[in-house]
Parts: sequence; C-alpha cells; structure tokens
Amino acid sequence: MIRVVPIPLRARIRPGDDLAALLVGAIADAGEALVDGDALVVAQKPVSKAEGRIVDLRDVEPSPEARAIAAEDGGDPRLVEVILGESAEVVRRRGSFIVGRTPAGHVLGSSGVDRSNQDDPDHVTLLPVDPDASARALRDALRAVMGADVAVVISDSIGRPFRRGTVGVALGAAGFATVVEHAGRLDDVGRPFHSTQVHVADQLASAAELALGPAGGVPAAIVRGVGLEAGAEGAAGGLIDRDRDLFA
Amino acid sequence: MIRVVPIPLRARIRPGDDLAALLVGAIADAGEALVDGDALVVAQKPVSKAEGRIVDLRDVEPSPEARAIAAEDGGDPRLVEVILGESAEVVRRRGSFIVGRTPAGHVLGSSGVDRSNQDDPDHVTLLPVDPDASARALRDALRAVMGADVAVVISDSIGRPFRRGTVGVALGAAGFATVVEHAGRLDDVGRPFHSTQVHVADQLASAAELALGPAGGVPAAIVRGVGLEAGAEGAAGGLIDRDRDLFA
Repeated sequence: MIRVVPIPLRARIRPGDDLAALLVGAIADAGEALVDGDALVVAQKPVSKAEGRIVDLRDVEPSPEARAIAAEDGGDPRLVEVILGESAEVVRRRGSFIVGRTPAGHVLGSSGVDRSNQDDPDHVTLLPVDPDASARALRDALRAVMGADVAVVISDSIGRPFRRGTVGVALGAAGFATVVEHAGRLDDVGRPFHSTQVHVADQLASAAELALGPAGGVPAAIVRGVGLEAGAEGAAGGLIDRDRDLFA
Repeated sequence: MIRVVPIPLRARIRPGDDLAALLVGAIADAGEALVDGDALVVAQKPVSKAEGRIVDLRDVEPSPEARAIAAEDGGDPRLVEVILGESAEVVRRRGSFIVGRTPAGHVLGSSGVDRSNQDDPDHVTLLPVDPDASARALRDALRAVMGADVAVVISDSIGRPFRRGTVGVALGAAGFATVVEHAGRLDDVGRPFHSTQVHVADQLASAAELALGPAGGVPAAIVRGVGLEAGAEGAAGGLIDRDRDLFA
C-alpha cells in the first residue's frame, strides 16, 4: 500500500529561511518521521521563497520586446520581461502567455514565473535556479537531521498539451531513479516489454499534489510505500532531447 | 491521508468477462471493500480485453497509406493500419510512430493501440470505444454489488511532449469532478487564484500507476482519502479544445 501523508506548515516561508529545519518541525508536528525509502515531495513555491527567488515587479524595467509582447493583449510588460528572462527558449506563445523552456530544461507556462500566493501583489516567484541541486540539498539536510535515506521531489503544478488543467510533475529530484526502464523485463505473459519507461518522479509529484492542494498551506507530503529504485539522474534525467521528442 | 491500495487480479481477462464481478472478487481477496468516496482506478488494458477490443493482425489488410508509412522505417503495415483506423486525426508522426487523436479525443502514442502484454504476439488491443461509458458502467455495477458510491477512473500510461517516460492519465472517468477549478477561491494570503484548474482525474491515475506497475498483474487500485468533488463530465471534460490549447 502507498500512503500520501500531507505535511501542513503554518509558517510563511521567507527568503533565507531554513526550509529543511521547518519541514523537520512540520513532519514532527504531523506526528510523522521520515524513514528509509520514503519520498518527501515539496512544492516548488516554498523552496523558491526560501531561496529568495522573488522579484518585485516595481524594480523591473521591461525591454522593448517585452513591451511589444505585452501590448498584444494588455499583459503586464514587467511580468513578460521576467518570464523572458527565465526562458532559455520560447517554446510557444500566444500574446503575453508564454510557454518557455527554463534554463534547467523544463517546459512550463510562464517559464515557472508565478504571481499567485504572494504576500505582495507585485511580487512574483521564479523557480529555483537548479531544482535538482535544491532537492539534493534538502535530501542531505534531512538525512543529517533525521538519519533517514529519503527521496526528495520538488514538485510543480504544470499545464501540458492536449489536456485541461494542471498536474504535479517533478522539477527537482534526488535519491531515486526518476525514470524506470522496463525494456528487457518480461511482462505478465513472459514476453519482453517493448520499451516502457515510467516517469516515477512525475507520478510521485502527482500523487502528492492530490494532498497538497493549491492554496499553499500544505507545502509537502510524504509518499510512503513506493518501491523506489536507486538512481541519481535527478529531474534533469526525466527530460527529453528535442530531437527525440516524438510528441512535441 | 491518501491511501493507494493495489488490487491484484490473478485471472487473465478474456473477451466477454464480467470485469466488475472479477474486480469485486479481487477487492475482497485483497481484504478490502469499497466505501463511498473511494476512487477505483482500473488500467485500460483489462477493460479493453473484457470489451473484446482485440484485433488479430493476421486478419488485417493494410491500406496503401499504411504500407507507405510502414515502409519508411520497416514498421508493421498491419499495425499501422490498425493505428490509423483508431485515429480521428494524426497529430504527430515520425515514420511508423504515430501520435493520434482517438475518436474519444485523447492524444496518444499509437492512438492507444498496444501490442504488449498479449497472449498472442499478433494480437493488439484497442482502447475501449467510449472510455467514459466504460467507467460509468463499471461504477454502476460496483454500486449495484457493493452499495458504495465510488469514483471510477480508467487509466492509461501515456507519453507526452517535453518529458521522458509515461505517466498515468484518465481515459475514462465517472462519479467525480475530473477537473477542479480554483478560480475565485482565495489563496493562503487571501488573494483570489488566477485560474488554477487541477486535473484531479489524471493525478488519481498517476497515483494509482505507482501501485499498478506495468506488467499487468495489478490491474486496479483503490485511491482512498482524496476529497473528490461531485461532477459528471467524465474524462472527455478533461480534454482541451485545440484552439484553446496554448501548450500544443
């Protein structure tokens, strides 16, 4: 059986906060403890806030390009400027709605720049600079404090082609195999699998998001009982090269 | 807390089998019982098999188009023929790898046609003709037998753009709100959400797939403890119109 245990956190995260310490406290407050093999899924927003990845739009001077894009549909040129700055590549665009590839390689609406759930309406959060590094740091800190060898996922709710709404995916991952390859194994009737690769990390994130909810008061969840495999490729290893992407 | 309880099924499903009755038995064998508010996620493959959605490739006469496509990379023209027949639209194609929009509107590799995990290597399964109808029928049958008002998801493991591997999504859904809209609600700091829509059904499928595994011996899982909202739009309601799809 798999269990998804929500970990509420009363504290508002601020830049410089020790998120690992706050999560350790929140896990104890929930009457839980991390054990070997657990996955801790943490929403991206508190990670970004703790890392100080907050921009005040009042400090942003939009480029001519950002102004031109924003003018197409009355968007905020300052926000467009921030999104372009977070985009290694603009993958899709309709007016000021931009789907960008982040420097870490994830393809996300607004390149992960988010205006919701901020203390100040002119504040936006950016993604962690290196979400895999953030996951590794969190994993190391949790191991140091709790003595448990856990998987860590930094999750985000993202839109995707062909389907409505958002689902949780892994922006960062540490301590387990992100994608599990079933090629060469035998299926139920003894025939080898074609080449089934399962994105375990994204599914952990989606499972956790069912418990996290969007409002931010539950920033983390323990996912327990998934037989995770060893691996160290991070969420970066769950991305596909453009020329091999048969779906895009 | 959310629980994902795998429901193993020893029987091989064959056309005409009463899948609901088999699942009821398997749930009892697992020492479980469905209660109001539970979601039962059932993999697509056993549903398709029970519905007789199996094609013997030896009976397929490929069209000239299927032959031409297969010749590009040495694919099986009979398989291409079946995939084209299941595609209301070819959305992407590279050689004989086709991403198609199924008649029910899902965009899937090979339009859901699957050669793996068959009793006969020349057999392929097609998706249920109307996966939402299959989900509703299963829900009705489960309610009749077990007296519980449950959500049903028919899940599939699908590839998607931008990311490696497969994740579980809902091809069929009944008895709950597929997509939950958070627009108008207040976030943690009292500001209204932008327009966050969460695809709950896909996340249920991904959570369940963590327990299902790809080999087919665990074709279903109970997902318990998710506060599902009422709704009847089915998985069809989780699809996006092409002209509103900003990610495709």
